[in-house]
Amino acid sequence: MPPALISAFGHLKAAAATVNAANGVLEPQLARAIEQAASEVADLTLIDHFPLSIWQTGSGTQTNMNTNEVISNRANEILGEKERGTKKPVHPNDHVNRSGSSNDGTATAMHIAAVREVEGRLVPSLERLWKAMVRKSEEFEKLGLIKVGRTHLQDAVPLSLGQEFSGFAAQLELGMERVLQSLEGLRYLAMGGTAVGTGLNVFKGFDVQFCEEVSRRTGSKFVVAKNKFEAISANDAIVYASGALNTLAASLFKIAQDIRFEGSGPRCGLGELLLPENEPGSSYMPGKVNPTQCESLTMICARVVANHTGITVGGLSGQFQLNAFKPLLISSFLHSVRLLSDGMNAFRQNCLEGLRADEKRIKELMDNNLMLVTCLSGTLGYDMAGRVAKHAHKEGLTLRAAAIELKALSGQEFDRIVRPETMLAPADKQTMQVQT
Amino acid sequence: MPPALISAFGHLKAAAATVNAANGVLEPQLARAIEQAASEVADLTLIDHFPLSIWQTGSGTQTNMNTNEVISNRANEILGEKERGTKKPVHPNDHVNRSGSSNDGTATAMHIAAVREVEGRLVPSLERLWKAMVRKSEEFEKLGLIKVGRTHLQDAVPLSLGQEFSGFAAQLELGMERVLQSLEGLRYLAMGGTAVGTGLNVFKGFDVQFCEEVSRRTGSKFVVAKNKFEAISANDAIVYASGALNTLAASLFKIAQDIRFEGSGPRCGLGELLLPENEPGSSYMPGKVNPTQCESLTMICARVVANHTGITVGGLSGQFQLNAFKPLLISSFLHSVRLLSDGMNAFRQNCLEGLRADEKRIKELMDNNLMLVTCLSGTLGYDMAGRVAKHAHKEGLTLRAAAIELKALSGQEFDRIVRPETMLAPADKQTMQVQT
Amino acid sequence: MPPALISAFGHLKAAAATVNAANGVLEPQLARAIEQAASEVADLTLIDHFPLSIWQTGSGTQTNMNTNEVISNRANEILGEKERGTKKPVHPNDHVNRSGSSNDGTATAMHIAAVREVEGRLVPSLERLWKAMVRKSEEFEKLGLIKVGRTHLQDAVPLSLGQEFSGFAAQLELGMERVLQSLEGLRYLAMGGTAVGTGLNVFKGFDVQFCEEVSRRTGSKFVVAKNKFEAISANDAIVYASGALNTLAASLFKIAQDIRFEGSGPRCGLGELLLPENEPGSSYMPGKVNPTQCESLTMICARVVANHTGITVGGLSGQFQLNAFKPLLISSFLHSVRLLSDGMNAFRQNCLEGLRADEKRIKELMDNNLMLVTCLSGTLGYDMAGRVAKHAHKEGLTLRAAAIELKALSGQEFDRIVRPETMLAPADKQTMQVQT
Amino acid sequence: MPPALISAFGHLKAAAATVNAANGVLEPQLARAIEQAASEVADLTLIDHFPLSIWQTGSGTQTNMNTNEVISNRANEILGEKERGTKKPVHPNDHVNRSGSSNDGTATAMHIAAVREVEGRLVPSLERLWKAMVRKSEEFEKLGLIKVGRTHLQDAVPLSLGQEFSGFAAQLELGMERVLQSLEGLRYLAMGGTAVGTGLNVFKGFDVQFCEEVSRRTGSKFVVAKNKFEAISANDAIVYASGALNTLAASLFKIAQDIRFEGSGPRCGLGELLLPENEPGSSYMPGKVNPTQCESLTMICARVVANHTGITVGGLSGQFQLNAFKPLLISSFLHSVRLLSDGMNAFRQNCLEGLRADEKRIKELMDNNLMLVTCLSGTLGYDMAGRVAKHAHKEGLTLRAAAIELKALSGQEFDRIVRPETMLAPADKQTMQVQT
Repeated sequence: MPPALISAFGHLKAAAATVNAANGVLEPQLARAIEQAASEVADLTLIDHFPLSIWQTGSGTQTNMNTNEVISNRANEILGEKERGTKKPVHPNDHVNRSGSSNDGTATAMHIAAVREVEGRLVPSLERLWKAMVRKSEEFEKLGLIKVGRTHLQDAVPLSLGQEFSGFAAQLELGMERVLQSLEGLRYLAMGGTAVGTGLNVFKGFDVQFCEEVSRRTGSKFVVAKNKFEAISANDAIVYASGALNTLAASLFKIAQDIRFEGSGPRCGLGELLLPENEPGSSYMPGKVNPTQCESLTMICARVVANHTGITVGGLSGQFQLNAFKPLLISSFLHSVRLLSDGMNAFRQNCLEGLRADEKRIKELMDNNLMLVTCLSGTLGYDMAGRVAKHAHKEGLTLRAAAIELKALSGQEFDRIVRPETMLAPADKQTMQVQT
Repeated sequence: MPPALISAFGHLKAAAATVNAANGVLEPQLARAIEQAASEVADLTLIDHFPLSIWQTGSGTQTNMNTNEVISNRANEILGEKERGTKKPVHPNDHVNRSGSSNDGTATAMHIAAVREVEGRLVPSLERLWKAMVRKSEEFEKLGLIKVGRTHLQDAVPLSLGQEFSGFAAQLELGMERVLQSLEGLRYLAMGGTAVGTGLNVFKGFDVQFCEEVSRRTGSKFVVAKNKFEAISANDAIVYASGALNTLAASLFKIAQDIRFEGSGPRCGLGELLLPENEPGSSYMPGKVNPTQCESLTMICARVVANHTGITVGGLSGQFQLNAFKPLLISSFLHSVRLLSDGMNAFRQNCLEGLRADEKRIKELMDNNLMLVTCLSGTLGYDMAGRVAKHAHKEGLTLRAAAIELKALSGQEFDRIVRPETMLAPADKQTMQVQT
Repeated sequence: MPPALISAFGHLKAAAATVNAANGVLEPQLARAIEQAASEVADLTLIDHFPLSIWQTGSGTQTNMNTNEVISNRANEILGEKERGTKKPVHPNDHVNRSGSSNDGTATAMHIAAVREVEGRLVPSLERLWKAMVRKSEEFEKLGLIKVGRTHLQDAVPLSLGQEFSGFAAQLELGMERVLQSLEGLRYLAMGGTAVGTGLNVFKGFDVQFCEEVSRRTGSKFVVAKNKFEAISANDAIVYASGALNTLAASLFKIAQDIRFEGSGPRCGLGELLLPENEPGSSYMPGKVNPTQCESLTMICARVVANHTGITVGGLSGQFQLNAFKPLLISSFLHSVRLLSDGMNAFRQNCLEGLRADEKRIKELMDNNLMLVTCLSGTLGYDMAGRVAKHAHKEGLTLRAAAIELKALSGQEFDRIVRPETMLAPADKQTMQVQT
Repeated sequence: MPPALISAFGHLKAAAATVNAANGVLEPQLARAIEQAASEVADLTLIDHFPLSIWQTGSGTQTNMNTNEVISNRANEILGEKERGTKKPVHPNDHVNRSGSSNDGTATAMHIAAVREVEGRLVPSLERLWKAMVRKSEEFEKLGLIKVGRTHLQDAVPLSLGQEFSGFAAQLELGMERVLQSLEGLRYLAMGGTAVGTGLNVFKGFDVQFCEEVSRRTGSKFVVAKNKFEAISANDAIVYASGALNTLAASLFKIAQDIRFEGSGPRCGLGELLLPENEPGSSYMPGKVNPTQCESLTMICARVVANHTGITVGGLSGQFQLNAFKPLLISSFLHSVRLLSDGMNAFRQNCLEGLRADEKRIKELMDNNLMLVTCLSGTLGYDMAGRVAKHAHKEGLTLRAAAIELKALSGQEFDRIVRPETMLAPADKQTMQVQT
């Protein structure tokens, strides 16, 4: 079981004890011992006492009971009990589990763990990568590097390298919005619903006070689920949030692919980017440097896509009052969060921040690019511009020479019109030449 | 190609012509003819002229050019030209495609189509199903039906049938929130970016005016993409919105599964629900009625999950300035929208609205349910309550008899404590009995 | 419903009638009329009478009954009955459906359709592509083209272009083996199991005779399922066969990606391959030719991967005596078969067969490739060879110049050792120089 | 990195040293030290020296180099060298890696590990489960238990409990065939291809001798890949074999679902099966026993389906001469193998072998089953038989009473015809009554 889930169970048990005591359904002395023991679970001090795997009961009951027992043992120790396992004075079920059931408990711990890991790990990692990408885009923009665009992998009209990286930055910014959006649904907690959502054996108001106490303890915002039957029988909020991670993985896959292709070479690839050298790339071919960070990140993305499939299959397989795929769901989700967080950190530090442009190569390719012809289509019309480009292509000429040979334009006219630096943005209406 | 995409292309071309003319880069007379022809494309009058399959260029170029040609032909006809294919006075590239490229055009048409189909088809269908589910929940609630809860497929503490259906309704309500949330990202349009996002050959301000015009024409809100490099090179907004559909599919799968299991029988299943009889269920076994609507809906959900995988694979496979899986992405997305919309309508009309409870059966099962023992755990403690239940189970006794035999409680005490109707909600603090 | 499935139902009904009559459980006169009518269903003459969608009962009952009715109507017409729908003398259930049920019938028709489509469509298409790939490999081999290898997208030791294409050919050959292997499981038919697998209402021996008759009619080999309970309650054979299609899709995706990347350019990409020009590539950028066939094929592959996910979800969702996702399973499977078949045909005809190598470009890149250094590692050892390569890389030198500058080798020694044509195969033991 | 892969690398390095020495390209003394050290890697004695994660270079280069260094260090130690890391006399690249590259090495180690884990772990586990299922089927058959069949979750014609379990056994038997079939493709090794498949720096015949030596060392059969370009640039054999695991997961999911549903209860479910009680099922509801093994197994199956998606995405993403998703592919595959093996063992031991039938309950449901009417359709025809069933259903009568009331049959006739024990198999032709 992921430590983040165990920690969440610790917070849950501590908060329940606090609220139970405050409402007179748990003796203050027992509550204080439970709170202390549960806090130790929350800060992972007692993690060695949680040996269970995720391949257990689908409600996470065994981990809930494991938690109850670890806490009762430790609380009894705190209260001076010498022997282990006496269940006295603190009983794992009667006291530690009070006002809760495995079903609402695991559903609740899942959401607490998910929110805390996303907020504490993924969001900072994503924000740092996004900002590093913005900085890299600005750094490239300042260099004034204009490069060939590529659509269908074919040479296309130019853009600046900074613009290209601004597209990556925008993917990450939107990825952040999506993650934050999907996070909202995870703030709703099932606690107070006990076994099936009715709240049997819980006192009125427990749920609200519990969410306030967990919010206070963790510093993250949590509120009562609108419908506790839904919150236990389905885990759709996890499926949806995993969809945001899946989208982020798709974005990162694309970014890493582009960077490794643009860094391909050193001499027989595109060669526009220079990746930092972190380690020898091959046991066999001396001198070769591989895009290890890109490869690692794309593998991570494939894993996140895989986790999403598993989460979807588990998510649709709930039955009646319980979704019994909870350990699979939360472990896969937290795995994706962890992998993406670590992967983005590593990619940023070991690849992105040290990434440089090969200015000479970029310019060399740009000068070769036939697709500058596009800025002729306003003056010459689509058909004639196409003829110029094809002529250059077939004869191995520059566009300029081809245009002159076909008498489409004089050299002077060509030089006036075909300026890559004017091709990076919309034009003023007044200066546009259009075919009527 | 899905008609909804063709229609979106029609709106796109009409709006572009309007804005081009208003800014003096297209002759008003040509613009008016293009607007009229494009409107006919938008309302699908000319759909027979769009024979292309989705297995074409990954930018949708062929469909964009198809649109340009259909519109120029029709516009020339409107302008009195007798012969087809003259490209005069309206030229498909020079005029109809003005201020646009296949790349920003297809990306834009995808979003227009997606928003319109989600708003016009999915949202109403989902809303109707959700409201019908709320009504069904209220209808069952009024009947006061208390049923056995089931967790791990095992008998559990009771809930009302209305509460169970309120959980389904909550899944749908949350599904609606997710769909609407993910829809926001689809309102951003790439138009004005032309081939790679720079906006080459477009005049400043075209993009804003274009979005206003499309919004006006369609009645749906659209705005300019924050970053047009992202908007053409990636289709992450589709991947994310598909994640919302994937979550909705998971919810519907669960709901349909529960309903068909609770309707299983007629005599050897759970038999709590009576599904409406729509058609003879078997060619072979007379008298049998099958949960056809549930089967159809779960197959649809599996198809939506499949489409989501395809969208994810296509979404992560963009390269450089273009994602070249656009026809796959949009056709899969619109397919999911259409299937879910039709599927929810059919399920609501042919299954949900006619669904009835078998009150006698529900009560019979409820009286048998050993898990009413749970309300004894406050009084007897966990261990003794468990002993009573096990005793009843092993000896085939009622709980009441078992409790008396074990001297846990008198019959009178039992009757006072074990009342299912008191087990459906949290209790007042004052009345709770807890084990200290 | 896919026509191939309707056709399979036709063969099924005809074969059943033949066997029923031969065993005296159906009047010969009725049987003959049923055979004739069913043959018309099999050859799709009556396809217009099958309006049902795949979103129906999960057993395909509605399509089975549709078939029964179309055949009984047509058989009655053949027998001189004027009025439609009289069910006399041929009754759809009592006669056409005799010795069958929807459950074993649909399971059987699925396998018949799958085998026939794979054998009749996919295998020939795959074989043609494979052989064309072998031919292309041989054609390139004859040209003696040695090219830079690329691992991690980085320049690597050379191989011949023919060798590269032999790798593609091997993927296809193995793909064929996998498809044929997985096909074997589809030859087992559920027929004779009726509703749940027991064979109630069927006479002994029907199943064997039925399979012989279907084999005779279709020319494909079919045998009785080893266990009819399995054959109706699960559709694992479809899940497994879809896995073979999924693998083929992965192979084709890789091949199409490589070809479009190696054909990228015309001037700013790798440019080693020249793709045939089939259509204008862009509405906007004149002169550009896009890898449309590669894009179409990779989209198809993504769709096949998606179908496989849907088939897996449907395949694992069977319940008790019936898998009720049959229409989804078979339509997705046949969709994949059709898409792959058409996609491979189009790719072969419109891309592969016209593919040419840009010999000049390949040689130019090859001469630039630093990784020829690898053949120095035998002579110089790993560390020194690496130093030579790095020196050349940093100073922009050729390998030869770098080796001389570092006094690793004389120019003469270099020329003797570094010959790409010697790097394409293992060496004779006797001639190898190794570091001791 | 999975230990099984590290072990495979050990076998690989030992075999390469043996073959190199036998052919005079490695000094015998060094070879013997390498063999000994590599054998220690193979038996996992040195596993603590392999700290690398799977998120590394996509060729597994880092793990290959890790292996080379661990072996050279240990070999040097064996040869009396006191200091670590001297690279003398055994050099990690020059000697341990001789005749190999990371690319062919990792591809080879993947296959060795996969074959050994499938043969040594999955196949025995699957075989034990299959045989246990056969035994359980025979055990139930001997009890003569006839139960209600269920199709569409609706009551259907009967089958014996033994027959139902024979269907499960057949799924497992076919699953075994599929696993063994797909295993064949994993026996082909890339070794001898070095970096790109050409075999540069390897002597002729190395590949064949290497495969023989690995076969000898491991006791598993391995042969040279037919095409080494394919074997390094693609990992399709893993994708295909994962498809066999995916199918097995679908089978196990279905089996576990059926068993937990048929074991649902104790009083308000189907209740036909009695699952063994392994642990207390709930922290909250005393006396409840949950289908923990079924839940754990279905979660495992969802994970295997997820791994398959990841493997597919990685498998289709190879580029040029290398698939650079190798660590993801092999770790996911071995994860699936391990999970399925352990899951099947646990399920067999803790659920299947202790599974009992509730004979009383099965008989009770059977007596209630209206669908025995099916055996009346031969005598009464489809329409009248349907009327009898519907009459019984609507009036709450037994079939017998309904048949008599509708004057369809006398009681005597009914008792003669409707005998469940005659409904479990096809009939003799002579005794069949059919509607003409």
